[in-house]
Amino acid sequence: MGENDESEIIEHHDDEEMEKRRKPRNHSNSFLESLSSSEKEGHSSTQSSHRLLAYSDALISIIATVMILPVAHTKFQDTEELKQSIQSLLTTKVAVYLMTFLIVTVAWAAHIRLFQVIERIDDTLALLNLACMMLITFLPYTFSLMAMFPNYILGILLFCACVMVIGLIQCLIVLYGFSHPFLLNDQIQMSENQAYYKQHILKVIMRVPIMCLFASIFSVIFFQLSYVILAIVIFLPYISECLKWIRNKTIGGQVEDSPDSMLFYTYQPSEPLSKERVEAFSDGVYAIVATLLILDICEGNVPDPSVVKKQFNNSLTAALQEYGPEYLAYFGSYATVGLLWFVHHSLFLHVTKATRLMGLFNTFSLAFVGGLPLAYQLTHEFPRGSRNELEAVQISCVIIFFAGLFQLAMWVVALFTERETLHPYVRYGGRDHTFMLAKLSLYPCVALGTFFLTCILSRFSAPIFHMMEIGVPFAFLLLRLLVRVALALLRWLFCSARNDLDSVPVEEEDLRLPITDVLT
Amino acid sequence: MGENDESEIIEHHDDEEMEKRRKPRNHSNSFLESLSSSEKEGHSSTQSSHRLLAYSDALISIIATVMILPVAHTKFQDTEELKQSIQSLLTTKVAVYLMTFLIVTVAWAAHIRLFQVIERIDDTLALLNLACMMLITFLPYTFSLMAMFPNYILGILLFCACVMVIGLIQCLIVLYGFSHPFLLNDQIQMSENQAYYKQHILKVIMRVPIMCLFASIFSVIFFQLSYVILAIVIFLPYISECLKWIRNKTIGGQVEDSPDSMLFYTYQPSEPLSKERVEAFSDGVYAIVATLLILDICEGNVPDPSVVKKQFNNSLTAALQEYGPEYLAYFGSYATVGLLWFVHHSLFLHVTKATRLMGLFNTFSLAFVGGLPLAYQLTHEFPRGSRNELEAVQISCVIIFFAGLFQLAMWVVALFTERETLHPYVRYGGRDHTFMLAKLSLYPCVALGTFFLTCILSRFSAPIFHMMEIGVPFAFLLLRLLVRVALALLRWLFCSARNDLDSVPVEEEDLRLPITDVLT
Repeated sequence: MGENDESEIIEHHDDEEMEKRRKPRNHSNSFLESLSSSEKEGHSSTQSSHRLLAYSDALISIIATVMILPVAHTKFQDTEELKQSIQSLLTTKVAVYLMTFLIVTVAWAAHIRLFQVIERIDDTLALLNLACMMLITFLPYTFSLMAMFPNYILGILLFCACVMVIGLIQCLIVLYGFSHPFLLNDQIQMSENQAYYKQHILKVIMRVPIMCLFASIFSVIFFQLSYVILAIVIFLPYISECLKWIRNKTIGGQVEDSPDSMLFYTYQPSEPLSKERVEAFSDGVYAIVATLLILDICEGNVPDPSVVKKQFNNSLTAALQEYGPEYLAYFGSYATVGLLWFVHHSLFLHVTKATRLMGLFNTFSLAFVGGLPLAYQLTHEFPRGSRNELEAVQISCVIIFFAGLFQLAMWVVALFTERETLHPYVRYGGRDHTFMLAKLSLYPCVALGTFFLTCILSRFSAPIFHMMEIGVPFAFLLLRLLVRVALALLRWLFCSARNDLDSVPVEEEDLRLPITDVLT
Repeated sequence: MGENDESEIIEHHDDEEMEKRRKPRNHSNSFLESLSSSEKEGHSSTQSSHRLLAYSDALISIIATVMILPVAHTKFQDTEELKQSIQSLLTTKVAVYLMTFLIVTVAWAAHIRLFQVIERIDDTLALLNLACMMLITFLPYTFSLMAMFPNYILGILLFCACVMVIGLIQCLIVLYGFSHPFLLNDQIQMSENQAYYKQHILKVIMRVPIMCLFASIFSVIFFQLSYVILAIVIFLPYISECLKWIRNKTIGGQVEDSPDSMLFYTYQPSEPLSKERVEAFSDGVYAIVATLLILDICEGNVPDPSVVKKQFNNSLTAALQEYGPEYLAYFGSYATVGLLWFVHHSLFLHVTKATRLMGLFNTFSLAFVGGLPLAYQLTHEFPRGSRNELEAVQISCVIIFFAGLFQLAMWVVALFTERETLHPYVRYGGRDHTFMLAKLSLYPCVALGTFFLTCILSRFSAPIFHMMEIGVPFAFLLLRLLVRVALALLRWLFCSARNDLDSVPVEEEDLRLPITDVLT
């Protein structure tokens, strides 16, 4: 830790990551370099980017989840069938929410990529980043303009303008970073191909603004085409990467044309994604979603004193009883979001490195989580026992199911590359592995169970749903016990099976480890 | 870093802090202890509390700033004088906002205190903490009930019930922590007075719920008294600590009756406050405040297609021009909040340890920051050149002034105990010290200047304000240059003074260091 005394701020949070990447033979080299650069430039000019990124993550996560509010604030008529209102919702507002979430997370991924290359910042970069953030926070508005007025070009022009300016600012940041090499990632800083890296990164970044420029030009002539171009901008790198992967799998033979192995700005599913930032972004989304309903309650559910006087004979309790279902909705959605956060938290405790594919599933999971408050609010908006209520309950179950399922998908993806992405003690076969699987599958299972139960006992959909709300937190508390009981049961079954058949299945070798762990 | 291989999760983020606190002679002891405990309990049961706390900070910061929304959504009549509307606002909504902010930050401080004692968590603690958070997020609602219906006891009963349950959960957490000592702070873990610590902490925590129990009993009999009791609950520890401090200063002689020096659960202004958590909480508040206006814009400022058709002859641009001032308000408030965050970020780069007093000033600064979007929105709500507009601009200036001033106060407090709280190179006299001071004083000075300028040129208040909005970001970009010019000017002045008077002032010794630094 000797060098930390000299450049404490710079290396405050990067230690650990650097420690891993830095090859032993380069250690003394980088040590000297960092010393000389920090002496050259003074302490205050170079800073760890940790807090700047945390703040950016907070901003982006708020913006990504904001667009659920217009959906949630749509008022339903009790007489109207939910199906119709859901259909009208689906057409614009839910679409805007999902597209905003997607586009903002794409911008966020670009931001991660950028600041994996530039690992240290100074005041100029901090200010440039704030300007970039301002434009990203403005994106949802341009998108809702596009959705509300699909035949006007103003929305798409505004969107393109924002994206172009964001791209230019990112280019500025890259140019600034490469002109002050001590700000860069250690790997690039020590590489002999800095010029190549710079060119490659600029090329990738500039691709988007240039496409947007074309889109905005086309929008004047024939604006339907510009939507196509925008879709290409977002999906092209993934499609081309998919095609490349398929080609490699079928024909074989990896063609590597870069002088260094390019770790950044590839679109491969195994491209590293800063684990810390995935956590920070998810925390932000979970926190906003958990509190979305209390925002509404604080603003809308305090009755007017005059109303209390006239309608409720001065009885505040009676006036508040009218809002009863909404409090229940709040506590229900808070508990569900909180527990989904808890599962996410447990999952990432075991993860050592996040990849782009895991990030993608995380985004999908979060997008469903964002819909939860809306679903819970719907559940309590319709008269008891009505068909609407049943459908609202079922929609809630579907949303919870998919939110949990994509968390499970993250875990499965991590297991596929477990040597790189997981701690050794949770790899397939360990006790912690079983326990984690139980945590991850609890919500999907419960949601699925509730869904089918409400199909059969459609009359009692609301009571069943409330029972689930109350039961799940206790299930999580007792999960360790439940897993032990289940494993003991499994062992008992296997033991009796062994006695009968006298043949040991191959999988049991893996299973025996946790069982003995648990029982001893 | 040898022990990290064995217990990577547990010590993931606590390393650095522990490294400082842990006395060298105890090192091997704690190493053995952590080894044995992690082997005894398995890996997954014990976790670093880092992310749990980050999530809690995010939740609490959202809840603290939420109550500005009802204030911001109050509609003003253009004909009505601003003074009157401001007065009616001040009476309830602003009071609710400020009191909520205060109470939530008190709950947050209690949460910090608790998790400075319990440094590692397991699943049970994580779930208990989520339950505790749920009740904290419900506090603002009970408070707005109290403010709207001061003569009903329901609000105060609900508030007391929440606080009592929070207290009980915190007690549970403490009891759980002391029954699993490897979860505790290292200092307490190794202390021989664990029982004393436990008793002291429980006593401090239980004080609040017991007072609330009394308050709720009194509220049935004579409810005005219960408000007094609640005020005592919040302020008593600070008042008693103040009195103790004054007594010690006047009479002298510190009476220390605890067997160990109690680092936690004292209410001294120098009590340590986790720097990481102060940053996370502030980030959350700044991020929410920066995006508050875009929330409104996304929801309220997308015109209805039918309105565009009827009123604006299908011209979307014309329809959006109506919202022009609100976009300006958004960008203005975003830039101001972003730059105040930037100053805060720069300040905390230099801080090594945060104290309770710094936390208090931080809270005050953040409370003013929370009012910014409201002030900016007001600025653009009134007709050009009206008296209302002038007053709105002046209120904005006052809010910016105080937000910046309390940041400056934090810096001054840190300077008073600079040996403990600041990095060596920013202590009084360094170049970075001067530069930091310039950053901190920029916003108060500009706000004060704008305020007086609008007093003189009251007609041009809005243009002056917009000039300020545009100018300040560039001032921050050029600040390093400006400081150098100012120091060079100062040096020139001092040199000529020295030639004249031939006597060197004492302060100059300190000043010369930065000047030579800058010029060479």
